[in-house]
Amino acid sequence: MAKAAKVKAVKLGHRELPRFTEAEFAHRVERAKSLMTEHKLDGMLLSVEQNIEYMSGFVSQFPWSSPSRPWYFIIDREGNGTGVIPEFGETCWRGSSWAKTVLTWPSPRPENEGIDLVAKAVSGIKRKFGRFGMEFGLESRLGTTMGDMMRIADAIRPFEAVDCIPVMRRLRYIKSAAEIAHIRRACTIGSDTFDAMAKFIADGDSESEICRKFAAHALMLGADKVPFTAIGTGKGGYDSIVQGPSDRRVRKGDIVFLDTGVKYRGYFCDFDRNFALGEPPDEAKRLHALLWRATEAGIKAAVPGNTAEGVFRAQAKVLEDAGIVLGNVGRMGHGLGKNMTEYPSNMLGDRTKLEVGTVLTIEPGAMFGKNKILVHEEDLVVTEDGPKLLTRRCAKEMPVVKV
Amino acid sequence: MAKAAKVKAVKLGHRELPRFTEAEFAHRVERAKSLMTEHKLDGMLLSVEQNIEYMSGFVSQFPWSSPSRPWYFIIDREGNGTGVIPEFGETCWRGSSWAKTVLTWPSPRPENEGIDLVAKAVSGIKRKFGRFGMEFGLESRLGTTMGDMMRIADAIRPFEAVDCIPVMRRLRYIKSAAEIAHIRRACTIGSDTFDAMAKFIADGDSESEICRKFAAHALMLGADKVPFTAIGTGKGGYDSIVQGPSDRRVRKGDIVFLDTGVKYRGYFCDFDRNFALGEPPDEAKRLHALLWRATEAGIKAAVPGNTAEGVFRAQAKVLEDAGIVLGNVGRMGHGLGKNMTEYPSNMLGDRTKLEVGTVLTIEPGAMFGKNKILVHEEDLVVTEDGPKLLTRRCAKEMPVVKV
Repeated sequence: MAKAAKVKAVKLGHRELPRFTEAEFAHRVERAKSLMTEHKLDGMLLSVEQNIEYMSGFVSQFPWSSPSRPWYFIIDREGNGTGVIPEFGETCWRGSSWAKTVLTWPSPRPENEGIDLVAKAVSGIKRKFGRFGMEFGLESRLGTTMGDMMRIADAIRPFEAVDCIPVMRRLRYIKSAAEIAHIRRACTIGSDTFDAMAKFIADGDSESEICRKFAAHALMLGADKVPFTAIGTGKGGYDSIVQGPSDRRVRKGDIVFLDTGVKYRGYFCDFDRNFALGEPPDEAKRLHALLWRATEAGIKAAVPGNTAEGVFRAQAKVLEDAGIVLGNVGRMGHGLGKNMTEYPSNMLGDRTKLEVGTVLTIEPGAMFGKNKILVHEEDLVVTEDGPKLLTRRCAKEMPVVKV
Repeated sequence: MAKAAKVKAVKLGHRELPRFTEAEFAHRVERAKSLMTEHKLDGMLLSVEQNIEYMSGFVSQFPWSSPSRPWYFIIDREGNGTGVIPEFGETCWRGSSWAKTVLTWPSPRPENEGIDLVAKAVSGIKRKFGRFGMEFGLESRLGTTMGDMMRIADAIRPFEAVDCIPVMRRLRYIKSAAEIAHIRRACTIGSDTFDAMAKFIADGDSESEICRKFAAHALMLGADKVPFTAIGTGKGGYDSIVQGPSDRRVRKGDIVFLDTGVKYRGYFCDFDRNFALGEPPDEAKRLHALLWRATEAGIKAAVPGNTAEGVFRAQAKVLEDAGIVLGNVGRMGHGLGKNMTEYPSNMLGDRTKLEVGTVLTIEPGAMFGKNKILVHEEDLVVTEDGPKLLTRRCAKEMPVVKV
């Protein structure tokens, strides 16, 4: 990995963003209260990383790296919040969350990891609808075991356990100005790193080495984590956008694709870039320019009142008019925020309306040659004045790395 | 973040480890077959990242960063494996997994994300016990939604859905030589990064900056990911081991604690180090030396036939004999492997027997002063010849950074 040693340390030009204010959380809680009423929920039990962080303000890397102990947050329809957490996490909880009611147990305690405390906290909540929200639905990844969640659904009777993801999805779909600033920061770091990439890819680098250099560079520019660095490389193109890194070494004639999710304080960017090592084949050049135009159409379509499906159609039309076989990704972009991919999907059948505060990726893709795929991605926010790009727009021509 | 610019690029002295062989997976499958028979399971449905990777060999960062689409692996008691995955992931699956039977659907398709395909695949499996394993239990974090898992449990009738975590836990508890080599590599990268840390911490760095420098350094030394960098800092000590990074800037008189989970190809290290900026207070020095001795006792106790509880007792005795109040972490180390923390827990009541191939962390902790905590951690593997350290043993005296 000698080449990797050439990554230069870089000086960050950005100050840290301010932490979310009390007013930010008060606003989230007000919206949650009214959505819970609308969905006839007396409260919600949250365990999913992104939902706990979003609602309670609690920040720790620990629960999401260590599955030994679950951490819960309960919020009721009156806006009261309760952390139900392992005893040794109390200082950390109180240091980050606005919710100062905290129930703890000495964990690990595999026979009862806080289930009795969750049941006790829920039993004290005012019962109007008799329905309590749990994270059953779309795109959620529990922060505890399914077995414990089934036990909790039993233990909170007579409350009926119902899916609260429609509430959380709606809350998180409309980003606040502070949230958008966080996503923009992640995008800026990603853009700066991609700009530097043409200089740090070297002939003979393995895919793993390129990903390591990319992630180290993004960290030094101010990223907090770089959870996602998918890479595809191959002579004249690549055949998968979710693979790697492998031990394959790049060489002249290759196209290198890197797709990244860079994280700044709990918010993601998600976009990719293609680089040609030496002059790319004409077909790849033409397709790159075409995808750039499809992206342009997708960006223009991202206005309040249009739908996720509409954004798909705008991109697909450019490709189909050029006689291109669409990629097999199933959608052309998606929501972005505390998850690298979130609701909605830019695809046929998803009629989700775009609103002021919707953050989307625009991601057209196309197949070519023998089982090759080329994709292209940008991130934007929908505003009253139309789409505003969060990433630094890729050049229409595929960047060429001299090797 | 000017100081961060001082991180030097580093040259890696290690070659990449060889990828896992076919024989490695054949061995895992043989063990799985016999454990399924023992637990009376006709097969298992896996969605948890670590379980899919362990059993199928499939490698991709994508499913674990993007919750929009679930990915499943089914293995039956005869050792047949089937990937049930989104269509656009097929190339990636075939490129990494030994299991060449692959069922795909065009995803996203929120109304049916592969549930019918999972049910179809399971229905073709030979029914001897009538019981099918699903990931309900201890320390598992589903790779799909709870709602979909409940639908699947229904859809695979007449199979009864039962917890398969006891099988997966047992499988993963005994590490192969190749797995131990991966964990050792993660530990070596972590040790090298900690050794460098005394040079790259600077007076006035924020906690975030220290974590970024640490992670960038580990990546340049060959880490694939640095998912976990908890940090605690404070004058004379810190009060939480699961928090941060915050914007707090370190200064002379502080103790800096960093706990890391560095990942190399799907395997973790998990250990921490303490640094004093300038001469530490006597109490912290004494406690550091005492924790070092408790760690020594824990390491010595990690022999085949002893229990996780026994390893706890060995550490606790050193601390209690010195009149120390034990920390509130609830255990003193745990299993380590594809998860940063895994079965078993070194604590009272966990009588799990240590075996050749058990990998453990040894992690005594103690409270001191006003709400302060100090912890200390090393990683080891249990062998026929006793414990073998995987981390580079910390010095008995707390390292002092000159500021």
